[in-house]
Amino acid sequence: MNTYKAAVIGLGSMGLGIATSAHRAGLTSVGCDINPASCQALRDAGAALADTPAAAAQSVDALAVVVVNAEQTESVLFGPDGAAGALPEGSVVLGCATVPSEFSKDVAARLAERGVLVLDAPISGGSVKAAEGALTVMASGPADSFAKAKPFLDAVAETVFELGPEPGQASTMKMVNQLLAGVHIATAMEAVALGVKAGLDAETMFDVITKAAGNSWMFENRVPHVIDGDYTPRSAVGIFVKDLGIVLGEGERLGMDLPISKTAHERYLAARDMGLIGEDDAAIIKVYAEQAGITLPGDDT
Amino acid sequence: MNTYKAAVIGLGSMGLGIATSAHRAGLTSVGCDINPASCQALRDAGAALADTPAAAAQSVDALAVVVVNAEQTESVLFGPDGAAGALPEGSVVLGCATVPSEFSKDVAARLAERGVLVLDAPISGGSVKAAEGALTVMASGPADSFAKAKPFLDAVAETVFELGPEPGQASTMKMVNQLLAGVHIATAMEAVALGVKAGLDAETMFDVITKAAGNSWMFENRVPHVIDGDYTPRSAVGIFVKDLGIVLGEGERLGMDLPISKTAHERYLAARDMGLIGEDDAAIIKVYAEQAGITLPGDDT
Repeated sequence: MNTYKAAVIGLGSMGLGIATSAHRAGLTSVGCDINPASCQALRDAGAALADTPAAAAQSVDALAVVVVNAEQTESVLFGPDGAAGALPEGSVVLGCATVPSEFSKDVAARLAERGVLVLDAPISGGSVKAAEGALTVMASGPADSFAKAKPFLDAVAETVFELGPEPGQASTMKMVNQLLAGVHIATAMEAVALGVKAGLDAETMFDVITKAAGNSWMFENRVPHVIDGDYTPRSAVGIFVKDLGIVLGEGERLGMDLPISKTAHERYLAARDMGLIGEDDAAIIKVYAEQAGITLPGDDT
Repeated sequence: MNTYKAAVIGLGSMGLGIATSAHRAGLTSVGCDINPASCQALRDAGAALADTPAAAAQSVDALAVVVVNAEQTESVLFGPDGAAGALPEGSVVLGCATVPSEFSKDVAARLAERGVLVLDAPISGGSVKAAEGALTVMASGPADSFAKAKPFLDAVAETVFELGPEPGQASTMKMVNQLLAGVHIATAMEAVALGVKAGLDAETMFDVITKAAGNSWMFENRVPHVIDGDYTPRSAVGIFVKDLGIVLGEGERLGMDLPISKTAHERYLAARDMGLIGEDDAAIIKVYAEQAGITLPGDDT
């Protein structure tokens, strides 16, 4: 067992994979989550659990906050039993949630007052990559933060983009990625719905488009869910309700019109209003199907 | 010289490449265009020229209509000196323009009255692929049409998707592709503009996004034009003014809301209104730059 101690706050599918990868790489890995099932999964993988973020933060080298949004990040760091008060001087906090860049900067400033380093470190790649220790991390922060986080990043990431010395730069890049990803998913559903309405089947569209100039990473990843009629959430509608919300908030802060993002966000809101917030985001196609009277694969079963 | 005769009406960058590829493959290749420079380019490649579509159609096996839209297709087939009256019985017309599927069906019905076969055959791949004889063709029509067109398709295409026995099916697929492609270009520009406004540079965004879930074929293809500050039209703003217009018309015909396509189309119209209709479609970013006060690569030169 390595003496480098890594804590992961938030054991959803991403956090669990990260904590497991850190453990497998030989780091002293401890996790913390309010969900007992998630805790049990990490225990089964052989890693340690802590009851509170503060307990997890005891004598850590690196603490990754792998929660859903800024509110949860705030709470696990600075709320009751939060990690901030227990973090050793010189340890590094990796902020992995998708949050506004201003929030990242603010967290970094508050932790700096305690002598704690911060790496703005939003992640992508999905739960399979997280479990394999093969995440993509978009990271920004001072050299000290990168140096302190290195053993942890080596254990959990395949690709680390070093985006600059300032917290917030990585969150801005993540936001750009989420704008594209969120719009591409909704656009894939608009296109497939139109094709179905006009008489094509989804599988043929998949075969052609994935070899044509209309392709996107998200088209290729999400359209199979429609073909299978399987809306088990790999990533739920609610994620892009939130993330395109962050995009639009940032646009507003910067005085910038983002009409395509806004229109796509309205599709996610429409899906939410249809009760689909917990379904896979490919369920956006159901918004189109309802409006246009389309039968989708799986509808007849 | 093969006795199979192929004619190409419309010698823009795509048609010229197709006619040249057919000639290189040993077919008897004849081209026709109202632009003398395009005609000269084909003559330089060693192929024959015809003065009118009717003259080009004399004793052909296959005649490809490689013009911009339905109006031009109508004109070169059925207008004065149009090909329709001169096409031999049993020859095949390949409709390669992006047109509404109803138009494809209508053309097929009118040519069938003259004993002429039709293949609905929109193309993609760009001018480089056209010149290499390596196009992607989305094709639909009866087996007779495919059989008659085969020597021509073998000469000019790398991939032929056989999308069904009815004219119109291929045009519908092309429309789905153009919806995705047109939205992805405009979305790439919205995302890059937001990133630049928030302090990132376009090159860094390109490096990260092309390896992340936000990637699209169009992001990867068009963002380099922004990085280079080079808006020489590889595909001009006007193409998607037209093609997203077809998408929206088809949505209307089918009673289907396509809000993302509509919003993206408005970006192309805004670029047109800024006088950018002849620039590369990456110039959509200038619409954002003007609204948000962004300096783009090349602005300072």
